[in-house]
Amino acid sequence: MKLWDKGISIDKKIEQFTVGNDREIDVHIAKYDVIASRAHAKMLQKIGILTANELIELLGGLKKIETQIDNGTFVIDPQFEDVHSKIEFELTKTLGEVGKKIHTARSRNDQVLVALQLYYKENLGLVKQKTEILFETLLGLADRYKDKVLPGYTHLQVAMPSSFGLWFSAYAEVLIDDVYLLNAALKTVDQNPLGSAAGYGSSFPIDREFTTKEMDFATLKYNVVAAQMSRGKSERTIAASLGSLCNTMSRFAMDVCLYMSQNFGFISFPDALTTGSSIMPHKKNPDVFELIRGKCNKIQALQTEMLLITNNLPSGYHRDFQLLKENMIAAFEDVKDILDIFNYSIQQIIVKDVDVNNDLYKYLFTVDNINTLVVEGQSFREAYQKIGGQVQDGTYKPDTSKKHTHVGSIHNLCLDKIRAKFPD
Amino acid sequence: MKLWDKGISIDKKIEQFTVGNDREIDVHIAKYDVIASRAHAKMLQKIGILTANELIELLGGLKKIETQIDNGTFVIDPQFEDVHSKIEFELTKTLGEVGKKIHTARSRNDQVLVALQLYYKENLGLVKQKTEILFETLLGLADRYKDKVLPGYTHLQVAMPSSFGLWFSAYAEVLIDDVYLLNAALKTVDQNPLGSAAGYGSSFPIDREFTTKEMDFATLKYNVVAAQMSRGKSERTIAASLGSLCNTMSRFAMDVCLYMSQNFGFISFPDALTTGSSIMPHKKNPDVFELIRGKCNKIQALQTEMLLITNNLPSGYHRDFQLLKENMIAAFEDVKDILDIFNYSIQQIIVKDVDVNNDLYKYLFTVDNINTLVVEGQSFREAYQKIGGQVQDGTYKPDTSKKHTHVGSIHNLCLDKIRAKFPD
Amino acid sequence: MKLWDKGISIDKKIEQFTVGNDREIDVHIAKYDVIASRAHAKMLQKIGILTANELIELLGGLKKIETQIDNGTFVIDPQFEDVHSKIEFELTKTLGEVGKKIHTARSRNDQVLVALQLYYKENLGLVKQKTEILFETLLGLADRYKDKVLPGYTHLQVAMPSSFGLWFSAYAEVLIDDVYLLNAALKTVDQNPLGSAAGYGSSFPIDREFTTKEMDFATLKYNVVAAQMSRGKSERTIAASLGSLCNTMSRFAMDVCLYMSQNFGFISFPDALTTGSSIMPHKKNPDVFELIRGKCNKIQALQTEMLLITNNLPSGYHRDFQLLKENMIAAFEDVKDILDIFNYSIQQIIVKDVDVNNDLYKYLFTVDNINTLVVEGQSFREAYQKIGGQVQDGTYKPDTSKKHTHVGSIHNLCLDKIRAKFPD
Amino acid sequence: MKLWDKGISIDKKIEQFTVGNDREIDVHIAKYDVIASRAHAKMLQKIGILTANELIELLGGLKKIETQIDNGTFVIDPQFEDVHSKIEFELTKTLGEVGKKIHTARSRNDQVLVALQLYYKENLGLVKQKTEILFETLLGLADRYKDKVLPGYTHLQVAMPSSFGLWFSAYAEVLIDDVYLLNAALKTVDQNPLGSAAGYGSSFPIDREFTTKEMDFATLKYNVVAAQMSRGKSERTIAASLGSLCNTMSRFAMDVCLYMSQNFGFISFPDALTTGSSIMPHKKNPDVFELIRGKCNKIQALQTEMLLITNNLPSGYHRDFQLLKENMIAAFEDVKDILDIFNYSIQQIIVKDVDVNNDLYKYLFTVDNINTLVVEGQSFREAYQKIGGQVQDGTYKPDTSKKHTHVGSIHNLCLDKIRAKFPD
Repeated sequence: MKLWDKGISIDKKIEQFTVGNDREIDVHIAKYDVIASRAHAKMLQKIGILTANELIELLGGLKKIETQIDNGTFVIDPQFEDVHSKIEFELTKTLGEVGKKIHTARSRNDQVLVALQLYYKENLGLVKQKTEILFETLLGLADRYKDKVLPGYTHLQVAMPSSFGLWFSAYAEVLIDDVYLLNAALKTVDQNPLGSAAGYGSSFPIDREFTTKEMDFATLKYNVVAAQMSRGKSERTIAASLGSLCNTMSRFAMDVCLYMSQNFGFISFPDALTTGSSIMPHKKNPDVFELIRGKCNKIQALQTEMLLITNNLPSGYHRDFQLLKENMIAAFEDVKDILDIFNYSIQQIIVKDVDVNNDLYKYLFTVDNINTLVVEGQSFREAYQKIGGQVQDGTYKPDTSKKHTHVGSIHNLCLDKIRAKFPD
Repeated sequence: MKLWDKGISIDKKIEQFTVGNDREIDVHIAKYDVIASRAHAKMLQKIGILTANELIELLGGLKKIETQIDNGTFVIDPQFEDVHSKIEFELTKTLGEVGKKIHTARSRNDQVLVALQLYYKENLGLVKQKTEILFETLLGLADRYKDKVLPGYTHLQVAMPSSFGLWFSAYAEVLIDDVYLLNAALKTVDQNPLGSAAGYGSSFPIDREFTTKEMDFATLKYNVVAAQMSRGKSERTIAASLGSLCNTMSRFAMDVCLYMSQNFGFISFPDALTTGSSIMPHKKNPDVFELIRGKCNKIQALQTEMLLITNNLPSGYHRDFQLLKENMIAAFEDVKDILDIFNYSIQQIIVKDVDVNNDLYKYLFTVDNINTLVVEGQSFREAYQKIGGQVQDGTYKPDTSKKHTHVGSIHNLCLDKIRAKFPD
Repeated sequence: MKLWDKGISIDKKIEQFTVGNDREIDVHIAKYDVIASRAHAKMLQKIGILTANELIELLGGLKKIETQIDNGTFVIDPQFEDVHSKIEFELTKTLGEVGKKIHTARSRNDQVLVALQLYYKENLGLVKQKTEILFETLLGLADRYKDKVLPGYTHLQVAMPSSFGLWFSAYAEVLIDDVYLLNAALKTVDQNPLGSAAGYGSSFPIDREFTTKEMDFATLKYNVVAAQMSRGKSERTIAASLGSLCNTMSRFAMDVCLYMSQNFGFISFPDALTTGSSIMPHKKNPDVFELIRGKCNKIQALQTEMLLITNNLPSGYHRDFQLLKENMIAAFEDVKDILDIFNYSIQQIIVKDVDVNNDLYKYLFTVDNINTLVVEGQSFREAYQKIGGQVQDGTYKPDTSKKHTHVGSIHNLCLDKIRAKFPD
Repeated sequence: MKLWDKGISIDKKIEQFTVGNDREIDVHIAKYDVIASRAHAKMLQKIGILTANELIELLGGLKKIETQIDNGTFVIDPQFEDVHSKIEFELTKTLGEVGKKIHTARSRNDQVLVALQLYYKENLGLVKQKTEILFETLLGLADRYKDKVLPGYTHLQVAMPSSFGLWFSAYAEVLIDDVYLLNAALKTVDQNPLGSAAGYGSSFPIDREFTTKEMDFATLKYNVVAAQMSRGKSERTIAASLGSLCNTMSRFAMDVCLYMSQNFGFISFPDALTTGSSIMPHKKNPDVFELIRGKCNKIQALQTEMLLITNNLPSGYHRDFQLLKENMIAAFEDVKDILDIFNYSIQQIIVKDVDVNNDLYKYLFTVDNINTLVVEGQSFREAYQKIGGQVQDGTYKPDTSKKHTHVGSIHNLCLDKIRAKFPD
């Protein structure tokens, strides 16, 4: 059954091509279609298109479907092209004429839009929550390992002293920037598009402010053409924000893989968190972090996909938009998993003692040596030349006595101040 | 002169390759290096590294340079690899020993970082201002042309009635979403990174909260490693936000080009805004809007560039970051131009009268016909089948009497409500 | 069962995360793993690691598995992490000790590599075949409709006369460029990587030239480190070539959607190839071509994904590479479908008569008017000014008498010459 | 002066926006415009539009301009919008009426197309040449350092023995794959588009096969609409091929930077090839290779730019295409530089002795130990379990006696066979 059936038999081959994976993907948005249908039905009653009794019947029918969804027994059978057709069919099968009335003053376009936006809003909230959990984990690790020295690198060359405290809390503080973008995405999707119908509104006197409140949206996308243009805009914005978060985790995972290499040897993980090789019996590989890195990088490509699908299309709905949801929803599921696994795994990190007296690391302290000379009265440039000379003629001796005390430095991590920056 | 000159002659070929276009690009950030150097110098005096007199001398030297910059007489000569070397050299040439002290407790890494962030912050502010101007222009046009009918399309097929009022104000409302992202980018860059030095802080007791206030940053990036990681993160976030804005303008420009086609013929522009052909004397081409579209699309690719340059690099500075600024700064200059030109050109639009009685457009009203039947008591699905039948057998007559009155629809644009949504 | 089982229980959560969708995806490459395992076993016998009897047993075991794959009864059960573990397990279960010998002198790394490359090679061949079919279809359509006029546009403005013959055969000729890239991709994957083991070769005296012949590869990737680096390189190259082909089809689909718009009205399709609207009963939307466009655009994003997953990773295998195959294989399946559907649908196109005497189109002929004056002895620039003057003062009269006769023009399509260019 | 001047004063602001950087960029393609203009003029004479004397005059005028270009004295003054207007103006200024005839039977569209394609063809050839030089350098280094051991990594974990011979020649062999793509790009641009005029051909009886031979193109793009569609297609294909080459160099540069890190310490470079730090006097940073990596990564983003500018535009010229050339030409100039610098720098590499007896590296040989057991008659899986047990209980002793002798392995690099694979 197709909503637009005109009695003409549609070619099978074409049908398969056009329906695609919608039946599988739509399971994720079924519950949001019920929420939006409920709000729409209540509004139809409010403006006199449904009677009070018809509303009760429709709400009952929707409740039944919602229960099936909650129980995992809701299935979109092959004869339906999507979840929206299925739900309307079920209502009509159960309730008869009343079921046929639910589609009054809406279109599949705004039905999909509003269901997706409800899905996005809830899942952005979940991603933000899980990000905050990881943020707290990292601050906790920073505090626990604040006295553990870590060589600091620039250009992958030994540079200056750092610490595990700095390393863990750096990634925590960077997550805050990612949350700024998540919040921007949340604002973008927290606007009710329902009532835009096919993208040009309706001649029914629908009450869009009522449905906005019913569905707990912060505001509505007033202009119906603007509402339709949310397709694509929302996805690009979400992809940018998830991509930013993934960039942070990907980079962190790169550090983890590098520091686990025998040549760095700064950290390790329990055997249960490493994997082996089919031919090298000694291997304990950081596959979990490599897959975090890889999956995060993959998600960073999502924005290009969302962009290419929508770019240069004139305003108004195009069927191409159907293709936005598949990888967008998959990305949400992946990002939630990645955050869980990252948070779970990083807590099991084994931080090793790094011997900074090892010859590899002796130049970590040249800037501290210079600073001692500066404090004694030399200009920075002169002191720089002097210590540089010692390095070249082999007479350099590290000055490991310095404390870094300014805010945000090794011995003054300001974890509470970083915690206080985490945005609502 | 290079800050890190170790007395070894660097191969010419290599030097040219590594310096690249820095001298030209750095002119854009010269004034911000002065601002940051002034704040740094004041702080050095506050913590006792400079005397009050030394500070006065340095501030005087910086003032002179600032005046040159303001007058457009500041040039980075070929013997300097970047603006930072040039300014330090000038101070030392003018002030002697004192000039050599300015680099105490900072590194070129945080110098570049802070100068770029000041540039980004100011320019994001300008972009936001110009976006608001365009927003107001569009609302003004929506109001002026609110009674002008425009056919609405879905799938590029004639669909339902729309209006120029809806069209203009749709793009206005979409700009609001772009500002959410601009604001996120602003928050990301409004954090003082100065004091992170080479990315691991300093053993001097520097006062980062003081420089934060001096430079009027909202907060500071506490963790010095996190501050260093802003390189790339800021650029990716800004590219996402500028890209989002450009996506809106690109799509608008696509509509303009399409509606100017003789086959649509909905709008035109004065001759002064169109261009001709080298062989077709009749042509009045919408080159301005095509170039807006193309430039906006180009800027949308910037995020991929920023991403590819930085992706999978472990933490700590890498020279690759130098390459981020060239196209980032060019994009800011372009976006400001595009906003100006768009705002300037769109005001000259000539809106034509579209004859909706033309046979092309008669099916615009089928949904309104259905709605009339629904109001008369039929279910939506039945009414849909009935009107569909009329379309097929050629008996359909458009019902052009309907008003769309709900919020955000053709006859109720809610321009003031949209205006009120524009974020601070 | 995992090949690298070290007797340590791996955390469930982690296992699920690391295995991902491999079991489903690997069904596509199962038959190629059998082909490569057969070649490897024969080689092991040739160099004396397997006896002739052991080889017979292994080939028998592999044959059984191959039959299951061909019959669609081969399933990768949940206890296996991928197809390679499953096949080795089956061989050992059936054949005992002999089964354990098949993994001698290979690693899962080169097993995956070679199976994927065989899959890629076969599927690139199929894509090329289907591209040639579409190419022929388009040349056929060009010939059939060579006398049907089509307005030619530049800047979406009416420009010069074109024809359906030109339009169809233009896309045919552009497909040739795409085949150049497909052929480059074919060369890239037509190199045997087997024998590279974990990426550094083997101390067994394996005969890689023998397996190269057995599997019918054109050559081998000699260097084992280079062979390992094919992971990612192959995928990026394939993504570029499929992306190029998709770009051609996407652009063609855009033309189709535009020309189907009532405002152009140049073409239509039978009802069976169009779809309807849930609220507008008159709609016959070109969803098939919109989905072709959208899917093609999505596939064009694949290269960014392949790039981001692999970029900046140092040489040597990384687990991230596992993530390359999912969307790569999905893209192959999609591209084959798209080519089929495109070829199937475009043959049903209904080409309409365009009335070039319509006022919309009268300026199509200005260049032909100029050319008449030039033939009469005026310079091009003078003639251009003259006709331009007529256009402006309203005295212009189209000269529709001209024939375009040069190679590749409206009345001389050179279809046979284009056909002859199609590369082997 | 604009070719399409209709006597209407074009707004200054707009002009600046539309002309952009064309005057600077076009200097790169000036000489190719002369080549194409010469071929076009000869053809016009051949078909009787120019007299023999007029041709001589035009060729003389073009020669003068060519000399200016060769001498570097050719400048595109601000009153011209591009190189094509400038050259036509010069011819007319010098030759009078005859100069006005050169534009007969061509359009700026095919003028730009053909000039760009000539530029692309020549520069792709140069890139290929320089790639072959780098290829030979790497094979030479592989031969010179074939006995130098290098630990091989998978997952960044110590895995199996490798060598500098393998490492250098791996990148050489991978370059071959890049040349497959360069060759595909060369084929794509080696097709004469001249004669397509504004994209729909000409009513003059032009001889396109003649100009094809004159300009030494391998073939022509027959279909004039297809010729026009080369804009964008060529650029995307070239960007894919340059991007592939850059990917190889970027990855190589990543290895170099990693191996130069003190924690690996496998290689170094003379001081003249490293750069210092503004605050750390001990630093010798691999900036050259970081910038190679960064620039290569930037160029890999170019394809997304080319794609976004052109994607979803219907057929026919659009002004957006003007924006393709700026970064495309910059990329060619960069790639040629990068190849030079890479080739120059890598020859100065200092290969260190790696002590494989160091505890870090002892597990490099576990697979060789297993293979010894296999040769002694154990199945691979049993031997794997046994050596794995020794690793876990600490009794493992490396077997460093094995030779890797198969083709493409450490002790059998097959450099000549790799050399023979380099494509014409």
